Amino acid sequence: MSIEAKFRKLGTDNAPGQETRQNAAGTNALLRGDPLEGRKVDFSHGDVDAHEPTPGAFELFSAGVATGGAQAYTEYRGDLGIREELAPRIAGFTGAPVDAADGLIITPGTQGALFLAIAATVSRGDKVAIVQPDYFANRKLVEFFEGEMLPVQMDYVNADDRSAGLDLDGLEAAFRAGAKTFLFSNPNNPAGVVYSADEIRQIAALAGQYGVTVIADQLYSRLRYSGATYTHLRAEAVDAENVVTIMGPSKTESLSGYRLGVAFGSKAVIARMEKLQAIVSLRAPGYSQAVLRGWFAEPDGWMDERIRRHQEIRDHLLSTLRAVDGVFARTPQAGSYLFPRLPDLAVSHGDFVKILRLQANVIVTPGTEFSPHTASSVRLNFSQDHDAALAAVERMAALIERYRA
Amino acid sequence: MSIEAKFRKLGTDNAPGQETRQNAAGTNALLRGDPLEGRKVDFSHGDVDAHEPTPGAFELFSAGVATGGAQAYTEYRGDLGIREELAPRIAGFTGAPVDAADGLIITPGTQGALFLAIAATVSRGDKVAIVQPDYFANRKLVEFFEGEMLPVQMDYVNADDRSAGLDLDGLEAAFRAGAKTFLFSNPNNPAGVVYSADEIRQIAALAGQYGVTVIADQLYSRLRYSGATYTHLRAEAVDAENVVTIMGPSKTESLSGYRLGVAFGSKAVIARMEKLQAIVSLRAPGYSQAVLRGWFAEPDGWMDERIRRHQEIRDHLLSTLRAVDGVFARTPQAGSYLFPRLPDLAVSHGDFVKILRLQANVIVTPGTEFSPHTASSVRLNFSQDHDAALAAVERMAALIERYRA
Repeated sequence: MSIEAKFRKLGTDNAPGQETRQNAAGTNALLRGDPLEGRKVDFSHGDVDAHEPTPGAFELFSAGVATGGAQAYTEYRGDLGIREELAPRIAGFTGAPVDAADGLIITPGTQGALFLAIAATVSRGDKVAIVQPDYFANRKLVEFFEGEMLPVQMDYVNADDRSAGLDLDGLEAAFRAGAKTFLFSNPNNPAGVVYSADEIRQIAALAGQYGVTVIADQLYSRLRYSGATYTHLRAEAVDAENVVTIMGPSKTESLSGYRLGVAFGSKAVIARMEKLQAIVSLRAPGYSQAVLRGWFAEPDGWMDERIRRHQEIRDHLLSTLRAVDGVFARTPQAGSYLFPRLPDLAVSHGDFVKILRLQANVIVTPGTEFSPHTASSVRLNFSQDHDAALAAVERMAALIERYRA
Repeated sequence: MSIEAKFRKLGTDNAPGQETRQNAAGTNALLRGDPLEGRKVDFSHGDVDAHEPTPGAFELFSAGVATGGAQAYTEYRGDLGIREELAPRIAGFTGAPVDAADGLIITPGTQGALFLAIAATVSRGDKVAIVQPDYFANRKLVEFFEGEMLPVQMDYVNADDRSAGLDLDGLEAAFRAGAKTFLFSNPNNPAGVVYSADEIRQIAALAGQYGVTVIADQLYSRLRYSGATYTHLRAEAVDAENVVTIMGPSKTESLSGYRLGVAFGSKAVIARMEKLQAIVSLRAPGYSQAVLRGWFAEPDGWMDERIRRHQEIRDHLLSTLRAVDGVFARTPQAGSYLFPRLPDLAVSHGDFVKILRLQANVIVTPGTEFSPHTASSVRLNFSQDHDAALAAVERMAALIERYRA
């Protein structure tokens, strides 16, 4: 494959955060009526001004700078002292041991961890099971390493509200067809659903039976709403060496500006990830690593309050969306994504996303980024200023009416 | 190729900074005599406590944090305002225009820029010309993307002291054999030599003639000693779209803890690099990007003083090394690496590197990391505390005598 062809598959024109590079020509001809006034809301990512970084993060960073060279230059997998602080906390959270020396790596963001984990498990032609819909980069990662995707559907629309709706027969068929890696996010990005204990146990059993390595992206697993239960795959694994779990403090904790993530579990995979990190970025930012000392050690009540505020926003946006005829929106049990399905419109849903930006100052991510089967949905990261988000979704509702088919 | 085989080539056992993960078993049996006392010196990287980060860096970072979400989340290629500040400064330094919008990307360290640049130009089976000796990751990057290396020798030992000694006939032969990418560092890492104006012009002419994309790693191009002249390849290029230049503030400016690098030049390659960065790490650390506002804008005299102190250390270490019978050490014209060739020893030079760590508290990088033909050399990053470095090199000299063949 030529380098041009290889990169054509990595299109970022609709990727969250890249909207400023879009060209509006072509969309202007579709516009109806006047723009709707209102404060710009960028639902492509969370607003860390509305939900501020964990208290003490900057002070930990400053202490890292004061430490000097020892914090600037660490092992490629991250500072050992910090890994030793984190390991028992992460083990406690996920319900299974974490080896600080050999079973944990600190990466530049969770994206860095995902990239390294896929690179460390997928070679050209390898079959990889992925979920549809799921995080948009999963597909691109498999394609970049020339793996073969075996998509498994997640019918979150028709599932009961305690399950994600994964097609477990489809997953087994993918494993039987030779998939050696299974990559999925839990809570699911974009749908915000959490896999039930039964689903996780069946995934674990199937992975054990077929010898599949599972990469579990649990980025949002701390932001869980009232009534949600959560099962960590690694605690149910048949062989712990076949599971890599990925987390990071960029979302719930609003520490994205420090670029930090972790992967933990399989020592063999972590060792390969470190070898690759050596040529990809060397290490996570040295001083930033120190910020992890405060992770899973937030002030009492801080996380509860963060969850409470997000749940309020979730519920208000859901009522506004559900008042629009033809919109389907499942209640997210965790995370900060809404993934409403819109009714038929007089323009394509892809164009409607551009229209929302041009006429309503509202940025959302098109559903096609997450699955070829969710073109009529859009993703909203509702970790926003409450009032601004509500007003933005009201403008979105008004434009749905204006462009209704 | 199996994933295990692919990663076997990425060995980091002797990679700079990973020495703490080495096992001493096997080396102990070779030891002669008692350890030499002295403060540990880690020549595998610079000491940012001895040569502190640029003044104002932390304040710029803090201002970035205070900016909040707009600094935490930037375009994947980095904040536009920062790119607009940097572009004219970099253009002035390198003597050719830099397009802030489309011709510049901010990456997690220069390692991040190198990785993306190779990934954006090399596909499986593509031929890539690289220099021997050169930065150890170059080889690994080409191997990881399953390119075919065409090594070109640089005879820095016998070259006149104004030239790097690149085998230009060998370079043309590589281009004629089909190399479409040429990757090299200038100043050279590890040898510290600078390519002459004539060498650079011939490289540019050959690249133009054969349509080769050149990736010029100029990480150390600001740290130049008295009498050195420096020619920027991009200013001599036949087609500017065929050159990508890589720099960063990690070394001379001691800002490694913030993990920042830049690549600039070819818009087509930069565009591919950004698409890939989206799945590798999303972006350089958001807050850290703000530190670049101080780059190429250091206080008057600061760079001169930094260079003066490094030149003093260089000269003292060189006299100590040259006093040892059989040691060859060329004077580096730029950068902070010494690459002395040692005499024959009773142990392998690889074992001697381990012995230095165990008996002298001195960490150096074995010459085999840079070329298969420089096994008898070791690399020292002399950006260290002056007295500690001198004492460490004296211990090294003593151990050379102790283990002399």
